[in-house]
Amino acid sequence: MQSSLLEHTATIRVRYVDTDAMGVVYNGNYARYFEIGRTELLRSIGIPYVELEQQGVLLPVLELHVEFRQPARYDDVLSIRTHYLHDHTVATIRLTYEVVRDGAILATGYTVHSFVSASTWRVVRPPRRFIEAVTRETP
Amino acid sequence: MQSSLLEHTATIRVRYVDTDAMGVVYNGNYARYFEIGRTELLRSIGIPYVELEQQGVLLPVLELHVEFRQPARYDDVLSIRTHYLHDHTVATIRLTYEVVRDGAILATGYTVHSFVSASTWRVVRPPRRFIEAVTRETP
Amino acid sequence: MQSSLLEHTATIRVRYVDTDAMGVVYNGNYARYFEIGRTELLRSIGIPYVELEQQGVLLPVLELHVEFRQPARYDDVLSIRTHYLHDHTVATIRLTYEVVRDGAILATGYTVHSFVSASTWRVVRPPRRFIEAVTRETP
Amino acid sequence: MQSSLLEHTATIRVRYVDTDAMGVVYNGNYARYFEIGRTELLRSIGIPYVELEQQGVLLPVLELHVEFRQPARYDDVLSIRTHYLHDHTVATIRLTYEVVRDGAILATGYTVHSFVSASTWRVVRPPRRFIEAVTRETP
Repeated sequence: MQSSLLEHTATIRVRYVDTDAMGVVYNGNYARYFEIGRTELLRSIGIPYVELEQQGVLLPVLELHVEFRQPARYDDVLSIRTHYLHDHTVATIRLTYEVVRDGAILATGYTVHSFVSASTWRVVRPPRRFIEAVTRETP
Repeated sequence: MQSSLLEHTATIRVRYVDTDAMGVVYNGNYARYFEIGRTELLRSIGIPYVELEQQGVLLPVLELHVEFRQPARYDDVLSIRTHYLHDHTVATIRLTYEVVRDGAILATGYTVHSFVSASTWRVVRPPRRFIEAVTRETP
Repeated sequence: MQSSLLEHTATIRVRYVDTDAMGVVYNGNYARYFEIGRTELLRSIGIPYVELEQQGVLLPVLELHVEFRQPARYDDVLSIRTHYLHDHTVATIRLTYEVVRDGAILATGYTVHSFVSASTWRVVRPPRRFIEAVTRETP
Repeated sequence: MQSSLLEHTATIRVRYVDTDAMGVVYNGNYARYFEIGRTELLRSIGIPYVELEQQGVLLPVLELHVEFRQPARYDDVLSIRTHYLHDHTVATIRLTYEVVRDGAILATGYTVHSFVSASTWRVVRPPRRFIEAVTRETP
């Protein structure tokens, strides 16, 4: 079995600090929403990111991509739908995101990551706990 | 003449507020650096963005893309090299960016925009001033 | 009856984006936590801030004060305890905040506000709905 | 001689990312402006903060205070006037700030800090370099 699809939906509310003078959420702030999405996906399969950190492993962002369809506005309640398709054959981790308000997709995007050592920032293998958790979820 | 290439280099310094607990600039904060790059490119050709706004025109981000090669760190002085290739045949505006430290490219990316009416957020033609300024620069 | 004490506790989780290279929450980001505290206090008494806005009234911050006792860290779950003591005799609104982790107060602070017209930014009387809501809660 | 007054003016431009849906700079973002003010004051007397860090010393914020008189807006050029009055008799460092646009003071504030060890976060004596630099400036 090479792959397994994980998904998770987090819910956030847009705050004033997230908006800009155009009256909408500032483009760079979707990075926050994506961070919340992937962190809560990891937590939902039993891997709080903070525990990876304590083991000396980081998961920096190598690539960030966002496409904006409709602006999100102050006080909106947004669903952050995060998907992760584990693929044993590649060294990087790719998550995709949809930002949804009342069933309408406002933005989509993805991030690419790799596991690195917190001390050297060199790429390392995914922690065994991570591999176990993502394959455990395989149907 | 269909196109003209504009470029501009802005310089910024990384502040504590831009960094995160990994000790590097947080991924979403490159949106700030890209904003500075394109705003200063526009100013350099005689179009302060604030004047477009005063004419009721906005230039929201439709797409944001960043690729990270090496982390930027606290107090780094970074050059934001912004390029804009004007193309009369398309309705959107695409800018590309390189974030450079001591000659090394730390990150690259692009943003896609379109002009919209500030009141309706409907797509509008580029303001005449914008067209004149970008074609004036054509060799 | 001149005054009534309202209180509300909101819960947030510290995100990477909130931290800085010292490994702790950046000082300015407590403004976000205070914003969440007061917004949710207002919502809890039936006045979503977004409705005040729709009536053309804003509640800008006139004063921000934070005292830091212990740093908050990545992934911490924090309680934002917000208090509001309504006083009919003064024109400004003052809220106080405590940021608490596992029963320990990490930070305290306050903000001062006044109601202004969204169009002129001139000080206006508190909306009737606000007065009714804060006095309704009086014991 | 117990004290010496240092001052420095830094200049910044307000970016979209600094503003909020009220059309003004978000209150918490003055923490960024104050950070720039004190960092550049330190650099101007020969103490880049990054060098203190390299010596294992941090200068966290213990207290943040801001008073807002008039809002700052998108694209404003702001002067951040920072003052530091060194006092040998106290263990904390206090800086005061004025945010000025075209000669008008938009906001004032202060921060209080103490030197701590980067490893233990325990309070330590100010580094000798710091004491020398602030007293060297004394008339």
